[in-house]
Amino acid sequence: MNIFGKNFKVITFGESHGKALGAIVDGCPAGIKLNKKDIQKELDRRKPGQSRVTTSRKESDCAEILSGVFEDKTLGTPICVIVKNQDAIPKDYKNLKDIFRPGHADQTWQEKFGHRDYRGGGRSSGRETIGRVIAGAIAKKILALKSKIKIIGHVFAVNEITAKKFQEKEIEKNIIRCADSQVAKEMIKAVEKANLNQDSLGGLVKIEIKSMLKSLGEPVFSKIEAELAKAILSIGAVRSFEIGAGLKAAKNLGSQQNKIKEGIAGGITTGDDITITLAVKPTPTIAQKQKTINASGKKVYFQAKGRHDPIILPRLVPVAEAMCALVLVDFLLSPTSKI
Amino acid sequence: MNIFGKNFKVITFGESHGKALGAIVDGCPAGIKLNKKDIQKELDRRKPGQSRVTTSRKESDCAEILSGVFEDKTLGTPICVIVKNQDAIPKDYKNLKDIFRPGHADQTWQEKFGHRDYRGGGRSSGRETIGRVIAGAIAKKILALKSKIKIIGHVFAVNEITAKKFQEKEIEKNIIRCADSQVAKEMIKAVEKANLNQDSLGGLVKIEIKSMLKSLGEPVFSKIEAELAKAILSIGAVRSFEIGAGLKAAKNLGSQQNKIKEGIAGGITTGDDITITLAVKPTPTIAQKQKTINASGKKVYFQAKGRHDPIILPRLVPVAEAMCALVLVDFLLSPTSKI
Amino acid sequence: MNIFGKNFKVITFGESHGKALGAIVDGCPAGIKLNKKDIQKELDRRKPGQSRVTTSRKESDCAEILSGVFEDKTLGTPICVIVKNQDAIPKDYKNLKDIFRPGHADQTWQEKFGHRDYRGGGRSSGRETIGRVIAGAIAKKILALKSKIKIIGHVFAVNEITAKKFQEKEIEKNIIRCADSQVAKEMIKAVEKANLNQDSLGGLVKIEIKSMLKSLGEPVFSKIEAELAKAILSIGAVRSFEIGAGLKAAKNLGSQQNKIKEGIAGGITTGDDITITLAVKPTPTIAQKQKTINASGKKVYFQAKGRHDPIILPRLVPVAEAMCALVLVDFLLSPTSKI
Amino acid sequence: MNIFGKNFKVITFGESHGKALGAIVDGCPAGIKLNKKDIQKELDRRKPGQSRVTTSRKESDCAEILSGVFEDKTLGTPICVIVKNQDAIPKDYKNLKDIFRPGHADQTWQEKFGHRDYRGGGRSSGRETIGRVIAGAIAKKILALKSKIKIIGHVFAVNEITAKKFQEKEIEKNIIRCADSQVAKEMIKAVEKANLNQDSLGGLVKIEIKSMLKSLGEPVFSKIEAELAKAILSIGAVRSFEIGAGLKAAKNLGSQQNKIKEGIAGGITTGDDITITLAVKPTPTIAQKQKTINASGKKVYFQAKGRHDPIILPRLVPVAEAMCALVLVDFLLSPTSKI
Repeated sequence: MNIFGKNFKVITFGESHGKALGAIVDGCPAGIKLNKKDIQKELDRRKPGQSRVTTSRKESDCAEILSGVFEDKTLGTPICVIVKNQDAIPKDYKNLKDIFRPGHADQTWQEKFGHRDYRGGGRSSGRETIGRVIAGAIAKKILALKSKIKIIGHVFAVNEITAKKFQEKEIEKNIIRCADSQVAKEMIKAVEKANLNQDSLGGLVKIEIKSMLKSLGEPVFSKIEAELAKAILSIGAVRSFEIGAGLKAAKNLGSQQNKIKEGIAGGITTGDDITITLAVKPTPTIAQKQKTINASGKKVYFQAKGRHDPIILPRLVPVAEAMCALVLVDFLLSPTSKI
Repeated sequence: MNIFGKNFKVITFGESHGKALGAIVDGCPAGIKLNKKDIQKELDRRKPGQSRVTTSRKESDCAEILSGVFEDKTLGTPICVIVKNQDAIPKDYKNLKDIFRPGHADQTWQEKFGHRDYRGGGRSSGRETIGRVIAGAIAKKILALKSKIKIIGHVFAVNEITAKKFQEKEIEKNIIRCADSQVAKEMIKAVEKANLNQDSLGGLVKIEIKSMLKSLGEPVFSKIEAELAKAILSIGAVRSFEIGAGLKAAKNLGSQQNKIKEGIAGGITTGDDITITLAVKPTPTIAQKQKTINASGKKVYFQAKGRHDPIILPRLVPVAEAMCALVLVDFLLSPTSKI
Repeated sequence: MNIFGKNFKVITFGESHGKALGAIVDGCPAGIKLNKKDIQKELDRRKPGQSRVTTSRKESDCAEILSGVFEDKTLGTPICVIVKNQDAIPKDYKNLKDIFRPGHADQTWQEKFGHRDYRGGGRSSGRETIGRVIAGAIAKKILALKSKIKIIGHVFAVNEITAKKFQEKEIEKNIIRCADSQVAKEMIKAVEKANLNQDSLGGLVKIEIKSMLKSLGEPVFSKIEAELAKAILSIGAVRSFEIGAGLKAAKNLGSQQNKIKEGIAGGITTGDDITITLAVKPTPTIAQKQKTINASGKKVYFQAKGRHDPIILPRLVPVAEAMCALVLVDFLLSPTSKI
Repeated sequence: MNIFGKNFKVITFGESHGKALGAIVDGCPAGIKLNKKDIQKELDRRKPGQSRVTTSRKESDCAEILSGVFEDKTLGTPICVIVKNQDAIPKDYKNLKDIFRPGHADQTWQEKFGHRDYRGGGRSSGRETIGRVIAGAIAKKILALKSKIKIIGHVFAVNEITAKKFQEKEIEKNIIRCADSQVAKEMIKAVEKANLNQDSLGGLVKIEIKSMLKSLGEPVFSKIEAELAKAILSIGAVRSFEIGAGLKAAKNLGSQQNKIKEGIAGGITTGDDITITLAVKPTPTIAQKQKTINASGKKVYFQAKGRHDPIILPRLVPVAEAMCALVLVDFLLSPTSKI
């Protein structure tokens, strides 16, 4: 349930408004240089309050390493990293006790688990991804040490607006994380407009994996695309996954398709670049009054108070990168790996 | 690598031209009625030589139960089912020893494993899916016993031609397995035309899951959509996966998206129907001469002899259904399941 | 490596002199009453400084719940519990940097991992068992809720001195945790004498499992005795495991053995009581000067300073109980369980 | 349940009187020389009818490789090997339908699974170990290729009679598999006498692991001794496990124990030899009339007909060796292994 991976095992934990969230990595090789900054850097990319297109919830999201690292090097023992919650105002959430917010997982969690932390969604909150980003930061250190692989996430489309260029250096320079600096401006405007309308937007994220290693992937069930798909679809709000030729594969002739470099063949990497595309739904929390039901099944109106993201994509980029990093490191450390 | 599932564990084995292929199921409850016919029925839906849009390789694909069933009931012990190969003509494949066929996994398997069964792709062949269908047939028996869930696969698009209607009863009546009997005819014509042109076609398959149970799925990593995505992407030739609103989620406003019944929320089933869409690439084996490389890295021409599928989608339908059945049964038998 | 169990998964983490140690439980059902006291009670049974037969290292070993519990009930999400280290005096340990202490795992850890936390053995320290006791306390809550199972650990022998009676109520009343109050006194004297001689003692621990449930155990590899053996042998210092008739089985005739109630048959519990016996080696840290080697392979003398346990058995009792509880709960929550 | 190992995964299947028994190995590296003889050699050491101290059931136990091997080399794909049953005389077993044989697992299997293959115990039969020996034979090939490790099993004691010498070459020369050729004769006489008395004997088996590799074992839960204990206790009829100083550790002083070379420290191999001792109970099937109960819970008498082992130890030796080989190969192929 909350464990990911076979060789580089990641366990994440923590509720949105509990004491702390975090991750444990079990299976990280010993002797890898690692300190708090390596992790903080990635947490800062996903933290709230970064810009005017993200929620204004104030959380510094400070990483604290509890175990597994000694004298700034990994020990080969479980690395536990936590982030304590600060800006959790419980009273804000009392009104959520008996209501199932539209587009959220309140109802399914209530039905499955019976007992639920209703404050901000508990563990069904996007805040859960803190643990993923922590583990992903460690995975990225290993990738950097053992390969030249680069994992570059960017927002490719916001609603109908689509990037035309891929300028890698621009991505982290604009608050929407789009690789096309011109289109980024339009995207931001669209988000601001939606926000003004008390609404939210979705879009497409792309992950480019460059300088890929050959021979990663373990058919028939742990094909590289199968594990990446699982990793990506395990992120809340994601509704599709494309790899290689993606949806276009359906319309190619065999003679065309055979000529495309997809980066994968038979579930194993070829060494060519891989591109993954994922559709992200718009944030469910919006300021407008919406119909929903309460815990007794009665129809009621619900209006979200306070702070929320009018679009989640820029903050989802580091999460999707982290998940890809986890999959790649897991294969890298696999007994069948050649590295 | 070749093991799928946690509670209902499936191991598949066998090479395209080896002695036998098959599957073991470990974790099937005891006392479930099961005989050879239950399995044969599903194998017949995927076997070659069914129609003029499938390969003419002749394999009766007869299921033989070696263990785990006694007096037509499961024992709770591993169920091993095999299918012996018959129509394997080794001499046909000698010419493949030193060539990497375009669009196939010959090269990546050679590079990863060093030693490779070059006859028909060995285990990278689509023939590997026999084991999946065997296990899926057993999973379907359990679903039928413990729920009303129906898993209905159908070919939704062939190249540019798309079904307009969903007539469940028509699916198994036409050789393309399309739920729109009129459009099916066009699809078949398109396939025949492509075949005549020594080419092949891809398309879209849809899996409709009806009368779904609530509360399946185990966040945060084993969300229902994450496990389904892995299951589907582990099938060779699949290049995309959509669930819920799918790609359309990217273009919805939050206020719209919140009103859609997607069948999933927070990684857990709501009880509503689920639809999965997958893009399938055209079959790589085509009759026309194609450029490729040989084992020494030299550019050569390759022309496939004999028998091949001009489209793989109708035969992939039972495989995709099987994979969905495996995921659902695995959740059904999970400690957190309420069934 | 640091994950135990399949259904009730436990991950332990933390080094002897790091910031904190602890455990995560993934797979604990939701809605179970749980608070800090439930855990503290068990931690107090294993903590140092309890009596004159345990080390005088002062650690209050306070449990802090970081996640998975809300309003004193489990959420079905990962339960993370930590214990912060207090009495870690780093300077005490500088002298251990380049020495391999006799009877400890310093050398094998150095050789396997290369980089090692030499302070008090890092994670090879017995302090690692804090995580096991935390998880075991949660497991015991579930057992109490879902069964009448009682797990009673006691010190059966210290060196040559063996208990003659089983008085359950006496166990926690004497500092050696022996079920025979008279023999307990002799045992304590023997330990004090060994300590005076700058030496240490080993002995036998027994775990009695009473009011056992039927049908636990999953042949052929996850037999109840196989999982218990793994659990017990994973505790440092344990050198043997007996179950059922134990060693005596070797000398019974078939006609005798067939009449014994062993509590297990074919790897499955019968419902009868189970007794496990384990041999525990004497604590390796003793005050006398001993020959050993240093990190350069040179022979040197080593004399341990300060605080250490002259016998580890009384503190190992709650750890062994915890491991048994983990195994039983794992089977209880298994898909094949009837509870 | 029927899957063993993490990196070198073994699945065994098959009932005593079903069509076939066997094993699949998933995770065997590609390119390893392997043929039927490698496996047959080990099967012949465990097969029935070898000598006058084993059952006279006639089974040639011929290995048939169905997948995973091509041109006498492993492919890196699942290796499926089966043994078909021949001498299964169903009528012999009709009388067992409603009776629970003393000392067997008939009753616990009936209670756990409800539906049971009563013919010769189905999968609770010792015949289940065929799959273990198949997989062990493959594991031994890998050990031979990647290390100099030798695994030598022998019968150390039969009832009260104990070997005095270790003459490795004698083991396979006497039918009891004792390393002391003189004592072997006494053991055989004792077995014959027990058989004449319509009774059976147990004893001790030892496994010597020589030329051991350093650094195998993965603390804290997958310590080498923990995994070996699980492996050994998963064999039916085993009631104890000792490693290192074993039971003697309980009576050593710390100053003595610290000087012993146990082959393990902190759950990791030191490179020194390892000895494992296991107690094996006498065979439950004996010719004399015994009290037992039937399926309705009524007390009845039971007298076994025909063929049975008066002692199981000589046939258990290759099984115990196989299980040790599985554990060692699993660690050898682990991501943390240095080989």
